[in-house]
Amino acid sequence: MSLETHFAENRQRHLDELFEWLRIPSISAKSEHKDDTARAAEWLADRMRDAGLTTVDVIPTAGHPIVVGEWRGAPAGAQTLLVYGHYDVQPPEPLNEWLSEPFEPTVRDGKLYARGSVDDKGQVYLHLKAVEAHLKDGGALPVNVVFVVEGEEEVGSPNLEAFLKENQERLRCDAVLISDTTMFAPGLPSITIGLRGMAYMEVRVQGPSVDLHSGAYGGAVVNPANALAKIIAGLHDEQGRVNIPGFYDRVVELTDEQRKAMGTLPFTEEGLREEVGAPALAGEAGHGALERIWVRPTLDVNGLLSGYTGEGAKTVLPSKAMAKVSMRLVPNQDFKEVERLFTEQVKRLAPAGVTVEVLALHGGQPWYAEPSGPLFAAAETALERAFGQKPVLIREGGSIPIVQAFQETFGAPAVLIGFGLPGENAHAPNEWMLVENFHRGAEAIAMMYDALR
Amino acid sequence: MSLETHFAENRQRHLDELFEWLRIPSISAKSEHKDDTARAAEWLADRMRDAGLTTVDVIPTAGHPIVVGEWRGAPAGAQTLLVYGHYDVQPPEPLNEWLSEPFEPTVRDGKLYARGSVDDKGQVYLHLKAVEAHLKDGGALPVNVVFVVEGEEEVGSPNLEAFLKENQERLRCDAVLISDTTMFAPGLPSITIGLRGMAYMEVRVQGPSVDLHSGAYGGAVVNPANALAKIIAGLHDEQGRVNIPGFYDRVVELTDEQRKAMGTLPFTEEGLREEVGAPALAGEAGHGALERIWVRPTLDVNGLLSGYTGEGAKTVLPSKAMAKVSMRLVPNQDFKEVERLFTEQVKRLAPAGVTVEVLALHGGQPWYAEPSGPLFAAAETALERAFGQKPVLIREGGSIPIVQAFQETFGAPAVLIGFGLPGENAHAPNEWMLVENFHRGAEAIAMMYDALR
Repeated sequence: MSLETHFAENRQRHLDELFEWLRIPSISAKSEHKDDTARAAEWLADRMRDAGLTTVDVIPTAGHPIVVGEWRGAPAGAQTLLVYGHYDVQPPEPLNEWLSEPFEPTVRDGKLYARGSVDDKGQVYLHLKAVEAHLKDGGALPVNVVFVVEGEEEVGSPNLEAFLKENQERLRCDAVLISDTTMFAPGLPSITIGLRGMAYMEVRVQGPSVDLHSGAYGGAVVNPANALAKIIAGLHDEQGRVNIPGFYDRVVELTDEQRKAMGTLPFTEEGLREEVGAPALAGEAGHGALERIWVRPTLDVNGLLSGYTGEGAKTVLPSKAMAKVSMRLVPNQDFKEVERLFTEQVKRLAPAGVTVEVLALHGGQPWYAEPSGPLFAAAETALERAFGQKPVLIREGGSIPIVQAFQETFGAPAVLIGFGLPGENAHAPNEWMLVENFHRGAEAIAMMYDALR
Repeated sequence: MSLETHFAENRQRHLDELFEWLRIPSISAKSEHKDDTARAAEWLADRMRDAGLTTVDVIPTAGHPIVVGEWRGAPAGAQTLLVYGHYDVQPPEPLNEWLSEPFEPTVRDGKLYARGSVDDKGQVYLHLKAVEAHLKDGGALPVNVVFVVEGEEEVGSPNLEAFLKENQERLRCDAVLISDTTMFAPGLPSITIGLRGMAYMEVRVQGPSVDLHSGAYGGAVVNPANALAKIIAGLHDEQGRVNIPGFYDRVVELTDEQRKAMGTLPFTEEGLREEVGAPALAGEAGHGALERIWVRPTLDVNGLLSGYTGEGAKTVLPSKAMAKVSMRLVPNQDFKEVERLFTEQVKRLAPAGVTVEVLALHGGQPWYAEPSGPLFAAAETALERAFGQKPVLIREGGSIPIVQAFQETFGAPAVLIGFGLPGENAHAPNEWMLVENFHRGAEAIAMMYDALR
């Protein structure tokens, strides 16, 4: 039976199974759903066994279990592909904004609405159905496959990295395949080749030792909130560039070819402006909005706090002021180096009369995948075959720390193929996945295994 | 009997009476002390009658009552002096920091410790004892005297202005005398001739219509917190001057004589720096710290709020940012004009990509009293006689809105003679008044009436 026929004949069953999984409210953030989360893991393990994976384990962690499923029947010397995903979901609140129950999957206008539909149960399950299509009747895959599906992605994967390290031998792989991202536009298959890194800092400015009366002292004492504003303002120049010496030294500029490819994507700045509801877009001079999000580093204030912030007027000259400032980083910036450069510049910008403390709260390296190699070529071929469109290479402005964790543990390149869509409400009410993308995604991945033969 | 003898013989009685008043916890901010507050008003009214005032009323308001006591026996055509003060006190918390009970007056090292000792019961009571010294045995004063002692000063005097307007005829006066300030240094009698005004603003910056993910959008969207920092930083120039066109146009510069007089005051910048516990002082170039506080206008951030301000890292690109900014004003700035100039400049400084709203929350005019006229001369003479030191003319960086209210209602000049001292903990635990200042203050005020004959 051809793959096309197999998928055509099994559409309803695949969907019914996914519905069953989506009905389990595996909300990792809520302890009252601990049993549901465990049940979702066991359910997946059973479906892995049904699909023909030969070693399937639900492995406990300090938090929610990790489901591992393996098939190692490929010819000697064959490569191993690790498929990563997660079976936990975001809390569904606010509940009153859902048009149908979050844990009762409902199809409207070709969209499957349910918490977890696209993030990430639907995208995990299509991988399992792709493998099943090959294995079910004693068939085989050209590569060994290991699924690693965790239950704590929505709470920051606190136990994944240790798990990977402890099971490094068992999970050894040559490439990692992740479907937890979106396509650039409907019908346009997409491979994500770049993610930004991050350096997240906290700046604490201290002036007088206690809050003072702004009348009795104002004018003679350096106000830490004014000082903080001066520091933050000094971190950008008039061209919207980040004003930190050395900050751009390692930034890789787009090649003409890459810039040209980006220019062909169906994107308008006006569309983005409307989406965010801002009066205008702006940013680093000499770059368009998509470049600013994907391939240019940034510096954004994430939080500000000082003095009196309640209603009305209180005439306090605050003793301290705090800002949380994060920088999104691009290849080949190094977050450790950026943390240091930022700290030095903040201290340079601080006026006399205050003391400044800078803390590095959180950091991660930027990521870029050279679009080459057999897995990448197979994915490109298969996506074009399944969607009738050559896939586009896209990036994301955010970070997926897991990608780094896999790369560091196994030294294996990652390929990110997303079947979500913009506006899918991944962490909001009315999360949805296009039903057609679920089916085509499964087909595409099955075709990718074919192309790897 | 000479005034000196009268006060020498009555020291203990005066102090005992004040102790009695201080034991009544007239905390205006706390509804559970409503009866105490009323009791403190009645107690004062009784002492006014004892002292020889002829018409004494405890007048109810929407809040706590106002005590009015009059003596109008001066010769026809004599002027009327209004003595203002307040019998309510700040809450005593935190209680565990008091070395003796806040409402059990205790003398240690010549200091009378109690909540309300200096702010303002002690300073009100010395005025009553001064008048009593003249009136008790059928004596007379050269001027008519009206006491207006309110019970809501510590909660912003919400009912005073309406009361003054409603009783404008009855309370008509030629000058207002207030003792609710401090002397510049121990042993140095002081008359306050200047107060700063205020324009208190709130700046609200709106960027995107909702909080965004700083990874998915950062770089292309104008961050309102960064924009706010830029605006605030733009409100000062490199010389520490307020960068608002027209802001200094009406500012009255010190005369050489005034500057020289200020230079003779026992003040050191290092002392101020130690007092506030800041690593250094700074401010507008070309002016010393005392000038910056007393006679130069300022612009201080009183509060900042945007985005995520809890523990750790949250990668939000906030949709809004808020700052409370107050300007202290000096003669002859006009707070209404400053509100307008500030608003215009903030809008000029705002970058494209955000909308800015500016609110005027609260304002008051600066105040300056020309040190001249018979009341002022009498006060100077009496203070020198009582303290053996010519009084110094000082200013305060803060505002006392009441002074403006009296000036506007009665068109009468105010004379501010304070008998408190720096470090008196007026709103903090262990509030104190120098016992000697209580006695000398009463004597000085009694002598002032003599000098007005």
